[in-house]
Amino acid sequence: MVRAVIDRVTDAAARHDATQADRLDRWRVLEPDAGRFLWFLAQAVAARTVVEVGTSRGVSTLWLADAARATGGRVVSFDTDPAAQRDAATSLAEAGLDGYVDLRPEDGGAGLAALGDGEVDLLFLDAERTEYPSWWPHPVRVLRAGGVLVADNALSHPDEIAPLEVLLRRDLTAVTTIPVGKGELVARRAEP
Amino acid sequence: MVRAVIDRVTDAAARHDATQADRLDRWRVLEPDAGRFLWFLAQAVAARTVVEVGTSRGVSTLWLADAARATGGRVVSFDTDPAAQRDAATSLAEAGLDGYVDLRPEDGGAGLAALGDGEVDLLFLDAERTEYPSWWPHPVRVLRAGGVLVADNALSHPDEIAPLEVLLRRDLTAVTTIPVGKGELVARRAEP
Repeated sequence: MVRAVIDRVTDAAARHDATQADRLDRWRVLEPDAGRFLWFLAQAVAARTVVEVGTSRGVSTLWLADAARATGGRVVSFDTDPAAQRDAATSLAEAGLDGYVDLRPEDGGAGLAALGDGEVDLLFLDAERTEYPSWWPHPVRVLRAGGVLVADNALSHPDEIAPLEVLLRRDLTAVTTIPVGKGELVARRAEP
Repeated sequence: MVRAVIDRVTDAAARHDATQADRLDRWRVLEPDAGRFLWFLAQAVAARTVVEVGTSRGVSTLWLADAARATGGRVVSFDTDPAAQRDAATSLAEAGLDGYVDLRPEDGGAGLAALGDGEVDLLFLDAERTEYPSWWPHPVRVLRAGGVLVADNALSHPDEIAPLEVLLRRDLTAVTTIPVGKGELVARRAEP
């Protein structure tokens, strides 16, 4: 059921994006391989508090919410585009996952800044990549010890992701890129 | 330093395998993308007891041992080929990782059967794929609740891996295939 909704939204996004010349008008939903990786990782680390910056049309949110259902957790997902979040809400309800997600029509940087220290088990960044460094130190501050951070587009947009990687190598451990989807940059907050 | 040794052994294996007509004579070392995935996963789940079946020339062992050094853990690696394990021992020493690995020249199925219940945080299977089902229930029994299992060659040899996947879907959770290297079939043992 969840996979059927994910497939439907992924296919719709591919059709939509093919008609959009402007990158910012594209939905840019998470690719299936990257989705499976996120879904497994969230369960492998038993993530209960998952935070996503960049709901887009909710494909990544569907993968993360399905994992959160398995771990007994929840997903908070930020996006400044209300139309995208309305679409995501519809898909989540159709998949029976709306009870596991808190969609917040807010700027992700401000959203992270408002979270408490060490609240987050898994943080997924899939928004405006050049803004990530301006959000520091919150992406690291909100992670619990042992929590993981994943950022999309490490291989599709390496120049835009490079400043984030510098910060992750300074502040976190186990930094590497998993070559699924558009490339997932990953890192872990060390235990003290 | 570790990456330099991994690169050297990976390159040597590629040259060796190119000259071998018989599949069983090939070293078949882990591909770099799959290595990075294993290295990150072992750290993400804070694996302290890592068990590998199939040392081969020690490339996967090097990745896992480097992760174990970071987690304060250890790797036990089984292989019935003493020449392969001698090569692996040399590479591990060169990388400064020999203190984190217990190389055992034993059959992996017998080795798993001799381990206690729930001892293992991460189990990596990269040996004779058609034998895996005959090892049951030990690959699951030895995993701790929350422990993860990874099997190589899910995409390169799907027919040989299929019987393992059936067992994993019956006995574990979060079963999927991460398309890095030759395809990593993954699963997690649920908490009770």
